[in-house]
Amino acid sequence: MSSKHNKQLSLEWKPDRASKVSLVKQIVGYVKHQVLKGDWLCGDILPPQRTLAKTFEVNRSTVVAALTELSLEGVIESTVGKGTVIANNSWSFLFSSPTPDWGNYIDQGFHKSNLPTIQAINEYEFIEDIIRLSTGEISSSLMPHEAFSTVLSKLAKNPKPYCYMEPLGLYDLRLALCNYLKYLGLDITPKEILIVSGSLQALQLISLSLLGNESKVFVESHSYAKSLNVFDFSGVEMHAVPVDKNGAIPWMINTSSIDGPSILYTIPTFHNPTGITMNLNRRQEVLDWCKNHNFPIIEDDAYGELYFDTPPPAPIKTLDDSGNVLYLGSVSKSIAPGFRIGWIVGPESIIERLGDIKMQTDYGASTLSQWFMTYFINDGHYENHLTVLRQTLKERCQLMLRILEDHFSDIASWNTPAGGFYIWLKFKQPISTKKLFDRALGEKVLINPGYIYGFNENYYVRLSYCYESADTMEKGLRALSVIAHQLMEEL
Amino acid sequence: MSSKHNKQLSLEWKPDRASKVSLVKQIVGYVKHQVLKGDWLCGDILPPQRTLAKTFEVNRSTVVAALTELSLEGVIESTVGKGTVIANNSWSFLFSSPTPDWGNYIDQGFHKSNLPTIQAINEYEFIEDIIRLSTGEISSSLMPHEAFSTVLSKLAKNPKPYCYMEPLGLYDLRLALCNYLKYLGLDITPKEILIVSGSLQALQLISLSLLGNESKVFVESHSYAKSLNVFDFSGVEMHAVPVDKNGAIPWMINTSSIDGPSILYTIPTFHNPTGITMNLNRRQEVLDWCKNHNFPIIEDDAYGELYFDTPPPAPIKTLDDSGNVLYLGSVSKSIAPGFRIGWIVGPESIIERLGDIKMQTDYGASTLSQWFMTYFINDGHYENHLTVLRQTLKERCQLMLRILEDHFSDIASWNTPAGGFYIWLKFKQPISTKKLFDRALGEKVLINPGYIYGFNENYYVRLSYCYESADTMEKGLRALSVIAHQLMEEL
Repeated sequence: MSSKHNKQLSLEWKPDRASKVSLVKQIVGYVKHQVLKGDWLCGDILPPQRTLAKTFEVNRSTVVAALTELSLEGVIESTVGKGTVIANNSWSFLFSSPTPDWGNYIDQGFHKSNLPTIQAINEYEFIEDIIRLSTGEISSSLMPHEAFSTVLSKLAKNPKPYCYMEPLGLYDLRLALCNYLKYLGLDITPKEILIVSGSLQALQLISLSLLGNESKVFVESHSYAKSLNVFDFSGVEMHAVPVDKNGAIPWMINTSSIDGPSILYTIPTFHNPTGITMNLNRRQEVLDWCKNHNFPIIEDDAYGELYFDTPPPAPIKTLDDSGNVLYLGSVSKSIAPGFRIGWIVGPESIIERLGDIKMQTDYGASTLSQWFMTYFINDGHYENHLTVLRQTLKERCQLMLRILEDHFSDIASWNTPAGGFYIWLKFKQPISTKKLFDRALGEKVLINPGYIYGFNENYYVRLSYCYESADTMEKGLRALSVIAHQLMEEL
Repeated sequence: MSSKHNKQLSLEWKPDRASKVSLVKQIVGYVKHQVLKGDWLCGDILPPQRTLAKTFEVNRSTVVAALTELSLEGVIESTVGKGTVIANNSWSFLFSSPTPDWGNYIDQGFHKSNLPTIQAINEYEFIEDIIRLSTGEISSSLMPHEAFSTVLSKLAKNPKPYCYMEPLGLYDLRLALCNYLKYLGLDITPKEILIVSGSLQALQLISLSLLGNESKVFVESHSYAKSLNVFDFSGVEMHAVPVDKNGAIPWMINTSSIDGPSILYTIPTFHNPTGITMNLNRRQEVLDWCKNHNFPIIEDDAYGELYFDTPPPAPIKTLDDSGNVLYLGSVSKSIAPGFRIGWIVGPESIIERLGDIKMQTDYGASTLSQWFMTYFINDGHYENHLTVLRQTLKERCQLMLRILEDHFSDIASWNTPAGGFYIWLKFKQPISTKKLFDRALGEKVLINPGYIYGFNENYYVRLSYCYESADTMEKGLRALSVIAHQLMEEL
């Protein structure tokens, strides 16, 4: 991932014992070939000799002979403490070059301590048998597969031109969304909405088009945004906004330190990761403060539709008579992330600008996905599905709360969600959530430790009840409880 | 689009004559509302008073009174020569801020003279009745709609998890592509292929991850790449590589001027826009030269499958034993652009790096599009469709050549394509292709003038035979011939 990534290589190759070429020559040839074609990079680390001997099914002396030859040729280097590393190849030239803009973004964007955790999470999510108490997506079993089939059959019967799309996205989908969003109190026209490939891309487009070197992005003191690279490039600074039980408190921002253009990013409803919902009064106060201070607001409403009983207060966007708010929506949390469909609602001029940039980035979202979503919304599947999903999420949440009560009430406290995906659990003692994460992984339980969302060390864990079913959820939480109690004792 | 875009506003609103509020007050309120909510930006230009009076269905004196009030309040300004412009609004603050990275990219990326042409092309392509001799996509009538229906029905019967995808994209699709690409001589594994949302995104990812401030990108002296913003950001320089009938001649590059990492971008087969195909010998020479000079090669093979009779030479990638080549493929030209599916083939380490960046950009391509393409390829639809498409393109090309012979042989010369979408027409006299473009638009004929692809003034036009059917193609070319002959006489 990084230019100094020192990846541990894992090998599956074996020499051919039937070959006339000696085993040593074969191993030397294999390693050189891997390096030469660029599959292995400078700095990558070979397994220990013992492991190599086992993998190649040869004597250790054969491995030593091969490594000696490779070392003499300068292909590998043995370093004390690091083991045997790849020393050179043709692409290294590029990677050792003056750091490119985006490379910079990758290498330096994340807090260094966070990077390995997030990489591990991304990686382990695709391993079988892992219990995912971490994941911010509903499991396939909660997706409306019957409705998906109905829509796909309808698409099969109604041929569409799968051409390049106009910059703002499929008109029919924008119109469908305008109609659908009325229930939130949003009264918009198709020119005020841009179809994007999910909220992450929305943030990407906004970052790259509206923020500059001296921009400051203010986010809730624990925020999903902190776990992303998206606001973390070339000079943009991310700062914490204090939060109380009603959400962000922008007037606590020290405005004297701001000289470049700044922006507030907020998740006012069923906040990720804290679960907090901003009340109506605070929404108005946040909007007023931001208007007075020329702060545009990015309102991320990914979870707003996932309430259990009572709809949350209307989006800040509905209070906005001055074009101050860019409102983000998405089907990734509410239907399924694989369609890669989200939207930005905002002033026509900004939407047009963002649409131009989207065209220059990827020529727009999948037309197939856009037609699919148009039917899905217009034919009422979205509303039907939400009715079912809200009930399921509520039940899973209640289950998780019961399990937490049984196994964690002596060592932690947490919020009681009214919607969304997450419980934000706080340990009563300062245990290392990094150790908790690592040991839980050892038991095949994946959690999101709070530090990936925060600006400071903390003792939080984000638990998600949207993915695992009853049995695995209980199993995972029991294992986590045992580990957490052990860590408490070690304090 | 640009921060200094001075857009001509077009209005559709009318005051309410039944209202108790005066017409002047209503107009003032309307304009302020449009500005306040950000739909109109600072610098945008209002229509002339006469037009406003007509649109609002009021006397001109009413318009004058309203504009005077707006002017006094500082909302608008009247400037000699420019007319009445919007003077201020809340988003202007952001746009007048220190130029953001990407804003820079947009404002300064394009050659200034090109920008309006490309904007016009993008805009006019969505206007009805326009004859598109410009377009680089097949018309909906050439798309395999029956096969699309078959695949959609199959998807309807086979529920898929539409979850977040692993970084390199759907494994099944990567495997399908590995099998499919064997016929080109490419022998690759799924770890060496990254699914992207089309070739533009591929170039975007490569640019942002591998190029730095001092990078130079070498492209054929007329190139599709020149019409894109993609290589035109923060310090990267694009340079022309001389070309002969066998393609790019890299040893003509003056290497003494290069000090940062450089890259060669080439379309070796049915080149866009020139139609040139690099012969096998040149492919080897290009690869050898680039290896010697540490130049990675981006090989864009968007058109390789669209040969009329004889397959072109194998991709440069098949000659590459050193991991020097990133090979780009896409279904945008060969099936339909709306699926937004393309791929990058390269060394595992580079593919992994690019995949990480893709995840940080948009969490991957549409899962629905990816499953669709997996079935489309695996079930043989791709090959069947290509057989039909090749024949159709050949016939359309022959038709265009006949029409050109009849109407242009006295004033222009052109290549005879062996595949792809384009004829690259060169006028014998230095007529203004900008004027040709403008006047053709007046006759509702859209062409791509050569200067959007070039580094210097030229007298070329790219004509596309992939979109229009026989009647409209002939009609468009006849109109173009008349205009071109007029321009010749005006010289």
